[in-house]
Amino acid sequence: MRRISSRDNSKIKNFIKLINNSKYRTREKMFVIEGRKMIREALECKNILLRLFIDESLVEDFQEEISLTDEDVDCCLLDKKLMNLLTDTEKTQGIAAVVQKPDYSFDSLLQNEELLVLLDRISDPGNLGTIIRTSWAFDVGGVLLTPGCVDPFSPKVVRSTMGGIFHMPVFENISLEDMGRLKKHGYNFTGTSMDTSQDYYSEELTGKKIIVIGNEARGISAEVRNVCQNFVKIPINYRVDSLNAAVACGIIIAEARKQKKGSSLS
Amino acid sequence: MRRISSRDNSKIKNFIKLINNSKYRTREKMFVIEGRKMIREALECKNILLRLFIDESLVEDFQEEISLTDEDVDCCLLDKKLMNLLTDTEKTQGIAAVVQKPDYSFDSLLQNEELLVLLDRISDPGNLGTIIRTSWAFDVGGVLLTPGCVDPFSPKVVRSTMGGIFHMPVFENISLEDMGRLKKHGYNFTGTSMDTSQDYYSEELTGKKIIVIGNEARGISAEVRNVCQNFVKIPINYRVDSLNAAVACGIIIAEARKQKKGSSLS
Repeated sequence: MRRISSRDNSKIKNFIKLINNSKYRTREKMFVIEGRKMIREALECKNILLRLFIDESLVEDFQEEISLTDEDVDCCLLDKKLMNLLTDTEKTQGIAAVVQKPDYSFDSLLQNEELLVLLDRISDPGNLGTIIRTSWAFDVGGVLLTPGCVDPFSPKVVRSTMGGIFHMPVFENISLEDMGRLKKHGYNFTGTSMDTSQDYYSEELTGKKIIVIGNEARGISAEVRNVCQNFVKIPINYRVDSLNAAVACGIIIAEARKQKKGSSLS
Repeated sequence: MRRISSRDNSKIKNFIKLINNSKYRTREKMFVIEGRKMIREALECKNILLRLFIDESLVEDFQEEISLTDEDVDCCLLDKKLMNLLTDTEKTQGIAAVVQKPDYSFDSLLQNEELLVLLDRISDPGNLGTIIRTSWAFDVGGVLLTPGCVDPFSPKVVRSTMGGIFHMPVFENISLEDMGRLKKHGYNFTGTSMDTSQDYYSEELTGKKIIVIGNEARGISAEVRNVCQNFVKIPINYRVDSLNAAVACGIIIAEARKQKKGSSLS
């Protein structure tokens, strides 16, 4: 383990750029995480943790995490002041890391027979992170994002996934052409909408199904709406405009998991 | 309408204090809102809007809102710079207001026969706001908060309710004694927990039921757990610790509304 003492160190600069710059994350195929829980989740995945930063005064507390890292992981010790530069939250937990972006195969997704979630221009980082976390909890096969979505590897999103970012396959920049390919491979697109009489719990949600959730303020775009083969609604009080996107998504995929478990028992 | 040109004006100072100071909000029985949607929701409730602030360059855009205010509402015009002081978001929409805190009767709640939600030490403003919004959507009768919860009238919570704060009765500082009174009046407390085999959808959720949701990190406290008469779980992938509190709450109260509508049809 080596000690870093200057904020001009290239590893510090690299980390801060990975916090703030989405294009840099994409180019470098890396993102950053912080806190014990996130580091633990990353350590469960093979070979994705590249560099570990630890508050030198807390080295004893993180012995277990350090012992779980591969030999080639670059472990760096920092003082509290430098450590604080590596967080965009108010308080650092004293541990942070650079990790590799996972690389999932869209082609193998086409062959699967699983529930997927397609998010159309979801813009709130907390919503996106929560949807990835919830999708993980309900055994969704993948979360697909249209180009207008917030970067799933931004620190706020990653934090809200509560580790889900390491376990839930996320596919960015899904085009209309990609949607066409999914359809050709038997996937059915089901949009969420208030303008339908079909309740989500009366709809068959098993098999090759893609649940489409639209932007927080504007809903599903016209082009993606055209891709949808049917629509379901969550019945709510007529005075209320809509549900929060992550809550709506959670309610529908909870129902899908219930249907799947029910049908696999029979 | 009068024009305010100084940031030392007592109405400006009062507004800023209402943004930042929870104790002041409690003492004055007032809170603040901003944006057209929130103002519209407030205008639907009788006599709660006390003072309106409008960006003088946007007065034409807000003619309808101005015409809907009662005669005794204090309408103030500000320039953009002053208007920007009245927001804790990055950009003001040019309209903000001081409103009266609603005053709901706990005694009449005891007599009702409705689903309630009890939140135990919920600390994230977005979660609390989303739960109030979702409770409104699913016709919950009231949201009860234990003393450790974040202030429901803080700007972040109010914003996340999307207007729900004006329509959903919220009761703060619910004590163990209050819970005892609710029980005596026939309410049944159902906690959410991962340590039970009872799935939420197999549980009867109609009638005088109180769904208990615990703190984001620590769950339901031991004292409140003691109050609960039964527990339900949302079945999820065993590798996932928990769901987001607002998502979990949404899934259960969506099920409760479904059961209620189903039983009222039969």
